[in-house]
Amino acid sequence: MFKVNDNYLKLPGSYLFSTIGKKVREYKAANPDRSVISLGIGDVTQPLAPAIIEALHGAVDEMAAAETFHGYAPDLGYEFLRNAIAKNDYADRGCEIAADEIFVSDGAKCDSGNIQEIFSVDNKIAVCDPVYPVYVDTNVMAGRTGTYDAKTGTWSDVIYMPCTAENGFAPELPKETPDIIYLCFPNNPTGSTITKDQLQMWVDYANKVGAVIIYDAAYEAYISEENVPHSIYECVGARTCAIELKSFSKNAGFTGTRLGYTVIPKDLKSGDVMLHSLWARRHGTKYNGAPYIVQKAGEAVYSPEGKKQLAGQVGYYMNNAKTILTGLKEMGYTVSGGVNAPYIWLKTPAGMTSWEFFDVLLEKANVVGTPGSGFGPSGEGYFRLTAFGTYESTVEALERIRKI
Amino acid sequence: MFKVNDNYLKLPGSYLFSTIGKKVREYKAANPDRSVISLGIGDVTQPLAPAIIEALHGAVDEMAAAETFHGYAPDLGYEFLRNAIAKNDYADRGCEIAADEIFVSDGAKCDSGNIQEIFSVDNKIAVCDPVYPVYVDTNVMAGRTGTYDAKTGTWSDVIYMPCTAENGFAPELPKETPDIIYLCFPNNPTGSTITKDQLQMWVDYANKVGAVIIYDAAYEAYISEENVPHSIYECVGARTCAIELKSFSKNAGFTGTRLGYTVIPKDLKSGDVMLHSLWARRHGTKYNGAPYIVQKAGEAVYSPEGKKQLAGQVGYYMNNAKTILTGLKEMGYTVSGGVNAPYIWLKTPAGMTSWEFFDVLLEKANVVGTPGSGFGPSGEGYFRLTAFGTYESTVEALERIRKI
Repeated sequence: MFKVNDNYLKLPGSYLFSTIGKKVREYKAANPDRSVISLGIGDVTQPLAPAIIEALHGAVDEMAAAETFHGYAPDLGYEFLRNAIAKNDYADRGCEIAADEIFVSDGAKCDSGNIQEIFSVDNKIAVCDPVYPVYVDTNVMAGRTGTYDAKTGTWSDVIYMPCTAENGFAPELPKETPDIIYLCFPNNPTGSTITKDQLQMWVDYANKVGAVIIYDAAYEAYISEENVPHSIYECVGARTCAIELKSFSKNAGFTGTRLGYTVIPKDLKSGDVMLHSLWARRHGTKYNGAPYIVQKAGEAVYSPEGKKQLAGQVGYYMNNAKTILTGLKEMGYTVSGGVNAPYIWLKTPAGMTSWEFFDVLLEKANVVGTPGSGFGPSGEGYFRLTAFGTYESTVEALERIRKI
Repeated sequence: MFKVNDNYLKLPGSYLFSTIGKKVREYKAANPDRSVISLGIGDVTQPLAPAIIEALHGAVDEMAAAETFHGYAPDLGYEFLRNAIAKNDYADRGCEIAADEIFVSDGAKCDSGNIQEIFSVDNKIAVCDPVYPVYVDTNVMAGRTGTYDAKTGTWSDVIYMPCTAENGFAPELPKETPDIIYLCFPNNPTGSTITKDQLQMWVDYANKVGAVIIYDAAYEAYISEENVPHSIYECVGARTCAIELKSFSKNAGFTGTRLGYTVIPKDLKSGDVMLHSLWARRHGTKYNGAPYIVQKAGEAVYSPEGKKQLAGQVGYYMNNAKTILTGLKEMGYTVSGGVNAPYIWLKTPAGMTSWEFFDVLLEKANVVGTPGSGFGPSGEGYFRLTAFGTYESTVEALERIRKI
């Protein structure tokens, strides 16, 4: 008689964004006359840039002729894309990352969920609190997190690193030594970030205790301030302790086009075993590459026209962020983020819980955001809004919130 | 100090097709003047059909305008595609599968590798021997297979079901009771298949012993004979014991476009737990959907023009299969498959091992095939050729083999 993976049954509730989606669908069904504005899930709204559209059409035409047709992609991704990434995202920033240390994938969510597979089940993870739910949930599914305490919303075998107003939403080194440390800067959900010196401290710590940092740099394109690292490989020693995850979703609007990559330096080893080899094996065995046409679109992200157009797109969203930040401050909300990240993190008013504020916002303003408690216990009493709406809907959402 | 997943280290050698790719690259580098014909990895060569190209261009145009732009896809896939699948692949064949029992993905390789995650590590798997390596390798990575015996090429905790000339390449019910049974018909690599009555026997057996059948129907489009099931759901009782995997790679040439789906009926349960819920949770947590433009391409596979064009494409490859089958028979080879599948399975001549024949074929005929032993111990002494080349290269390959 077959048995299921019991770890799945330990997961409380459904995946955060599925829950939100369901609530919104139900509200819309019950109130078909209301127009609901979503500043919730972090999905982009601007169309793909012209340079990307052109690359896509060109690649589709290639697929139409036998001479230029592309079947199975190389395991790690096409060289044209890995070379463009190595040059633009690393060499140009003074980071030493070779093209064959880059694994192209269909997105950072998949990679951030799958990466834990190459580690032992005995390893202990440390996460920021609040945190992108995928890191913890995928470790729950793998049986790495112990038991769940519904009262505190925490797992017995996970090291939580609170990120609150008190520490400027920057995690402190944990008291207990972790094996795997998940870091995300600019941060989802708080929109905060850390300086290069602060990140160097984490790299030094990881090398000292023999931990691996899984560094999620999905929001790197939104950095506007100096001295904020765009990659963990800007830090000395990161090649021996860090894996970096990158996405094309937010810098190029690929949420529905699907492309990302993971960097594993060949210097990152456990004894003689390169983590690079293990991930290569996983890619070769369980994955078949991102579509050729999408990889060509990814290449266009690094073309001169692509870069220019996407800088405009990021600027558009960051203007939304500024609008939300300024507007909420005027209304008296306590807010942070929104300067180096497309996320605004606000304190719920009048001691409301995160989900109470979610309901108020949905019902009274018809605006959807994300409850901070969905990201972890220290997110309780906070709420995330995203800058990924249109400018018009962002302004309209703020007007509605003002009227609550 | 972090530790790696030791199970990865138990895997002997690299993924089969990575090994072949490396051997071929090395041969080409050493012999730049030789033109090598690949009838190896099973990659298609015909361009995408016009109806699919048209759908792709149309979808790309949609991504270029804010009004028609598509961000994150629904967790299970777009309804337009799930509805097309439910109607064409199931309802039209008299199978009772609802659209919301279909999970759209980026391919059957990923799904066939990931599906084991929702089962307990204690479950015992049964596989045909020879078999598509992904089934076993991914269970090795999960720690479900025991220890490897290099002498026999088998894992201590895997039930092997030999498929040889003696049993017509159709597996017999195993003596030991498995929890999870992997079946693939039409079969990769042997190109054989089984009748509906034979498959019904497996469904009845699985229901009797409480096993789950993971049914890989990736080659269903190549079925040319009557009484060969296109789906396991043609069998009575399959809704309570079977998961079906399907690919767009071979019927529509999507090897480099990436699309597939998995069916999990809601009646398939362990106690109160629906496997459907677990897979939905996995999709929601570790996956972000296939690209919108690719799902639109998938929809076009089911349009009247798409169906007509793809029937032509399948016919083209099956003509290659016939050419190989006939040619090899004339040369005195013992061959099977190639009637309901794009694979031809041949006995290596003169008692050569599979890899010896691989080397002879590569060096003397400059033709690449796949060694049967790469698919499991009972594949030793056999060799797989695919019908996915162009007609011209297929004819040329046969001429070269004739001259060995």
